[in-house]
Parts: sequence; C-alpha cells; structure tokens
Amino acid sequence: MTAEMILPRGFRAAGLACGIKQNKSTFDLSLFVSDAPCCGAGVFTTNQVCGAPVKVSRERVPSDSIRAVIINSGNSNACTGDRGIEDARWMTHQVANGLDVKDEEVLVCSTGIIGRFLSRPPIEQGIPDAIRQLDSGSQAFENAARGMMTTDTVPKQATRTLSIGGTTVRVSGAAKGAAMIAPNMATMLSVIMTDAPLNAAQTDQMLRHAVNRSFNCVSVEGHTSTSDTVILLSNGAAESAALSEQELALLQTAIDEVAMQLGQAIIRDAEGADHFITIEVAGANQRSEAHEIARTIANDALVKTAIAGADPNWGRIVSAAGRTSVKLTEQDIVLHINGTLIYENGLPVDFDEKIVSDSIRQNRDVSIQIQLPFGAEAVVFWTSDLTQEYVRLNSEYTT
Amino acid sequence: MTAEMILPRGFRAAGLACGIKQNKSTFDLSLFVSDAPCCGAGVFTTNQVCGAPVKVSRERVPSDSIRAVIINSGNSNACTGDRGIEDARWMTHQVANGLDVKDEEVLVCSTGIIGRFLSRPPIEQGIPDAIRQLDSGSQAFENAARGMMTTDTVPKQATRTLSIGGTTVRVSGAAKGAAMIAPNMATMLSVIMTDAPLNAAQTDQMLRHAVNRSFNCVSVEGHTSTSDTVILLSNGAAESAALSEQELALLQTAIDEVAMQLGQAIIRDAEGADHFITIEVAGANQRSEAHEIARTIANDALVKTAIAGADPNWGRIVSAAGRTSVKLTEQDIVLHINGTLIYENGLPVDFDEKIVSDSIRQNRDVSIQIQLPFGAEAVVFWTSDLTQEYVRLNSEYTT
Repeated sequence: MTAEMILPRGFRAAGLACGIKQNKSTFDLSLFVSDAPCCGAGVFTTNQVCGAPVKVSRERVPSDSIRAVIINSGNSNACTGDRGIEDARWMTHQVANGLDVKDEEVLVCSTGIIGRFLSRPPIEQGIPDAIRQLDSGSQAFENAARGMMTTDTVPKQATRTLSIGGTTVRVSGAAKGAAMIAPNMATMLSVIMTDAPLNAAQTDQMLRHAVNRSFNCVSVEGHTSTSDTVILLSNGAAESAALSEQELALLQTAIDEVAMQLGQAIIRDAEGADHFITIEVAGANQRSEAHEIARTIANDALVKTAIAGADPNWGRIVSAAGRTSVKLTEQDIVLHINGTLIYENGLPVDFDEKIVSDSIRQNRDVSIQIQLPFGAEAVVFWTSDLTQEYVRLNSEYTT
Repeated sequence: MTAEMILPRGFRAAGLACGIKQNKSTFDLSLFVSDAPCCGAGVFTTNQVCGAPVKVSRERVPSDSIRAVIINSGNSNACTGDRGIEDARWMTHQVANGLDVKDEEVLVCSTGIIGRFLSRPPIEQGIPDAIRQLDSGSQAFENAARGMMTTDTVPKQATRTLSIGGTTVRVSGAAKGAAMIAPNMATMLSVIMTDAPLNAAQTDQMLRHAVNRSFNCVSVEGHTSTSDTVILLSNGAAESAALSEQELALLQTAIDEVAMQLGQAIIRDAEGADHFITIEVAGANQRSEAHEIARTIANDALVKTAIAGADPNWGRIVSAAGRTSVKLTEQDIVLHINGTLIYENGLPVDFDEKIVSDSIRQNRDVSIQIQLPFGAEAVVFWTSDLTQEYVRLNSEYTT
C-alpha cells in the first residue's frame, strides 16, 4: 500500500516519536507543511464538548493562507480548560516560529487521553526535530500517517491522480481511526492535500462534499468524539490556472474517493471487529433520510451482534429502519443481505438461511441493501460488527 | 415477591402452557379479565414496523368498555402481513366468544419470534382453558405474569394500595422484559390494572404520564421493538364515586410507581448485564432535554462498556452529553458517579479512582448523576451495562 503513497507537489511531511506516549519509541507527532501558503478548510466534531485544538483550528479556517498542520497523539488536550487553549496555541506558535510563518497559518489536532494537560517539553523538542525531518518522499508521508495513530494497527493513507489540461494533479491523505479503545475514546483525524488550484471557498465546499460521503458515513458505535477533525489543504503547486466546472467535478470525485478510502480504512481497522459491513439505502426521497436509516442500522447493537453471529436477522434490520423518523411501513422495505433477497412486501421470503449465514461467516465483508420505493436518493454507509472482543477491549480499565 | 401480589378487585387472570413454544411445558398464554366492562388505554411502540396485535389493539383504545387482554408469547405475529391481522383479530374473537363479550372489548398482545405465522390450534385450545382457569388469587396473577415471558428469568409484578375516602384502592401490574435474546429481539409488554374509578380519558392520560416516567425511561440498547405495548385497565370495582383532584394525584403516583417498578425489573432482568445503572439528569430547562441527555448516555456503547469494566470513565459520559442536541458546553456539566464528584468546571477533579472503581465493581447498582445549571427539570433513567455475555447471547444464531 505504501509504495505508491506520494504527497502532492509542494507538500512535505514528517512523523516521529517525541515522548508524549509512555512507550518512547512510538510515533506521536506529525507535521504536514505546504511550501507556499495554501488554502485550508476544516470540518470539525459536532460534539459540543470539544478539545482545545478544535477550538483553535476552527477559528483559522477557511483560509487562503495556511502553511502547516501539527498533530500529536497520546493526549487529546480535551477537557483541559483555558490552559488547554494556551497549550494548543503554543503548539502552533512553536511550528510558526520554526517555519518563519504566522501562528494563524498553522492548524493543530490532538488525539489521545482526555482531561490531562499536555506536557510541553517533549513537544518543544519534537517540533524542531519534525521540521528538520520534513521531506516530500513516501517514507516521510508514512511517518506522518504513523505519528497520528493511537490504537490504530496500520497507518492509513490514500492517493488519487487525475490529469487536468495535460498536468497530473494529485490528491493524497492520511487518517487515524475510530477504534474506541484505551486510553479513552479515540478520535478520527484526517489531513487531505491536493496540488490542484482552488480558492478557500472551493476548498471548504469540496471538503464538506467529500466528508458527507465518507467520514460522515462511517461509524463504529455512533459516538462523535470530542476531537474529530478533517482538514483539506490545496496549494495549486501542480497547476495555477483556475479549473473549469468539469475539472472541478473530476477533482471532487478524486477527493471524495480519497476520503472514502480513508473512512473505510478506519472501519476496517476498528479493534475487536470481525466484519466490515456496507449498508446501502436507496430509493429515498431525501439523502438525509437514506442517511438516517443507514446510520440507525449501522449503530444498532442488535444488528451488529447478529452480524457477529453470522445471522441474517432481517427482523432487527427492518425494525431498525422502522424506528427512524423516516415515514415508512414494513411494506416499503426490500432487503438483500450479501445479494440474497431476504424480505419484501412486509414478509420474509423463503431464502436459504444456511447459504446466507455461511456467506457472512466465511467473509469479512457483509452487504446490507435496503431498497425503498420513495425517490432516487441513496447513501452508502460503513460500519463494523459488535463482538465480544470489542466489549473486552472497551471494558478494560482505561481512565 | 409474589406473596403480596394481589389483583385489584373485579379482575381475574390466568396463565398456562398451550403449546406455542417448543418446550410444551413453558407458559405461553396469559389472560387478564375485568368482570365488568372497564376503561382501557394503551401506549404502543413508536416503531413504524409494528406487529399485527399492535395494529388491532391500537384501534380499540381508549375505550370505556374493555373486558379482557389476551397475550401469547413464543410468536410476536409481526411482519406477517394481512394474515397476521386476521390471526390477531381471530384471537380476540376466541376470547370474546368464551366470555360472551364483543370482539372489540378484547385487546391482544403477542411477543416472540417475528415473521412467522401463528399456529392457531394450540391457541384455539388454550383460550378456553385459560377462561376456565380465570381466578382472582395471587397464583393466577403470577401465572399470567409467567405466560407473557420470553427470555425473562423471573415473572415481573408490582402492586400498590392507597386509601381513598376510607376505601382501599389497588394498582397492580405485570410486565415482560426487553432482554434482546433468542429467538429474536424481545418486546416490552405490560398490563396494569386498578379498581379505582376513572373514565376513559383519565385512564389514557394517567397511563401516558406513567409511561413517560417509567417504560420511556428504561433502555437496554435503544431499540424500540415492533410490539412494545403498555395497557392500563380501570374498572372502578373498589369505588364508584368520581375521584377528587387530590385523589387523582395520589392514584397517579401509585400508577407511576407500579410502572417504574416494572420498568426497573425489566432492566434488572436484562440478560448478560452485570450492572443496573441509574442515570439522573437534573437542572435542565426542559424535561425533554434532560431525557435526551439521559437516554444518550444510557445507550452509549462506550459508557456501557466502561461500567462493565468498573471504569469511572467521565470522558465518555461528558462527551455523550455533548453530542446531544441540548445546547451546552463542557463547563455546564457537574458529574457524580456513585456519589463521588468526578468532573466540574470543564475539568476532571482529583478524585480517588480506585475507590470509585471498587464501588462499581463491588455493587450491582451504579449511579450516574449529571447536574446542569439551566433550569429545574430532571429525569431519572435506567439501563444496563454492555458485557461480553450480552454480545455472546445476542450473537447466537437466532433467525
């Protein structure tokens, strides 16, 4: 996977272990830098209890003059009051100082334990080290993807290229996951970069479009963390002429795909999960309605335990759809599991339970498809199953 | 428990095994009868995918002329189309025939596997047997409580008496639980009876008041089933004079208490749970806001696994409150766990984690208290923790 993971032109990255985490050799600091001022946009957690870095970064985007994103893992700097805000601002100041840019040109993200003040010394040492190690190569990109990790088992990166007017334009991103494990609940962070030319408004708009189809369509257990952040940086290093409508659409697709691949990678790495579940809801009047049904099924403990048990339990799925605010009756739902028709016209069909159960048991990927008769809107949503291992991991004493 | 479980005057009950369940000696049919026409009200599942008995009973209440409630377990008669409706009506007809009353004076509830048609022969035999066994004694009441059970491990009954103008008035009820186990997701059913005199509108209003403070404040995993039903019957057999405002208030309290005791008994019997968790949210502007916060905490997989692990994980609780639609910041929340102050002013306090953890580990009951600074509205909510055993039970192949 890492072989082709290349940063877009004009971006450099670094990742290293500075000593925030107990294991001093585990990476815990990442830096992404654009060589020239770039446009930056952010989508942040909707949780009203949010980390200090969210509060600091949120004020600085959208912007047409961003230079860097500094990320630490091991401590989320959330529920840390005024001192937390000071610490987050201080982190951006250290980076700005080292790069000779303005503080407000630096964004900051933190992930890890909540309710503990940051220890400044390791970060004070780590930031100049990261600046010295900044590099445009794939190893540096992977290091940066590793520096964001908490309980992730693999770094998560994605990249797409497209040709615009004969020029190769690239979109690349890194993310860390939502496995809700020690030391506390985890956070979803992602930085996506492109060397395509976009203004700040376009960068913001394209990020929101992509997030709605990717990170907003993945869930492990429906708990929006205090620090969730997705950032898009665009520096125009590959091409400076403004893009046509058609080129913008192509770029949007590439950004969507990178975001979807990263979102899915988070679910695939959800600790304790045995199955990767894709939920498609089609035929809705509104996209928001399809999303509500998909999300409700995805977060339903009964559906998730059924899949863990290789049980094509249509009753739990149909009932989960029924308890949403979307107006429907049991007659409106056609359900397929792994491609087999299971339920329609308000009744289960006479399907071969053993074949469907075996197909769940023998494959990591499971498909749940709901067809509604109302309209043309559809959503694809990704989640994991609920296993005993998930509970074991999340029950371990972590505070 | 059963020693003092007495039916209100003018009510009789029966419960027996008629052969719906595979184990032919397990009770699966219950009948509650009022000797004279009584007022009846019902609160039904809000799930749009609902069982045939819900559709049939919902049309018949509120009413001032109800005579009986027939309940079967082992088959929920849900997702059974037109034939299911016919079967539910047929059940009420069999009872009406045996009691020489009208079909619409009989309510029906079913719980058990969904998507299978009822087999009529055992019920056709069981209903006249139940009518023959109708009795006003405590054994008959317990039998009826047993006939509703699916995976419940104990019958659930509650009773309260109050003196109104020198007359003893009684409120008694039975319920079956929400343990979400084989053969499918389970249903919450309850029948509450009183010999106080109420008209149909009062019966309906009192039932809704009680449900809002009891069954609507319990949750195992937030999945409203297809068949949830709570019925209140009032026959005025103890007293025929209309009640004063004050007497109505006393009666409301008694009905609330019976409903709360039954709701809590359901949570205490939730299979696979190690802890019974009481969540109090006080200081809200609106009761609905306190309810939303309490419900979100109660259904949060991360909070539930933390309690299973004896972890006073304030971060997950505060973050769950933050992801509700109730306008608040982390500064607004004061959190106590088992009476110990854990978090206030946006920061965790320096509490003794071991003492709080031990108090969770060593007790089945856990208290989570959230104090807000907004108003005077409060809600108490009850839930269970999320254990590996819960997942094991719910992952077993059940379809």
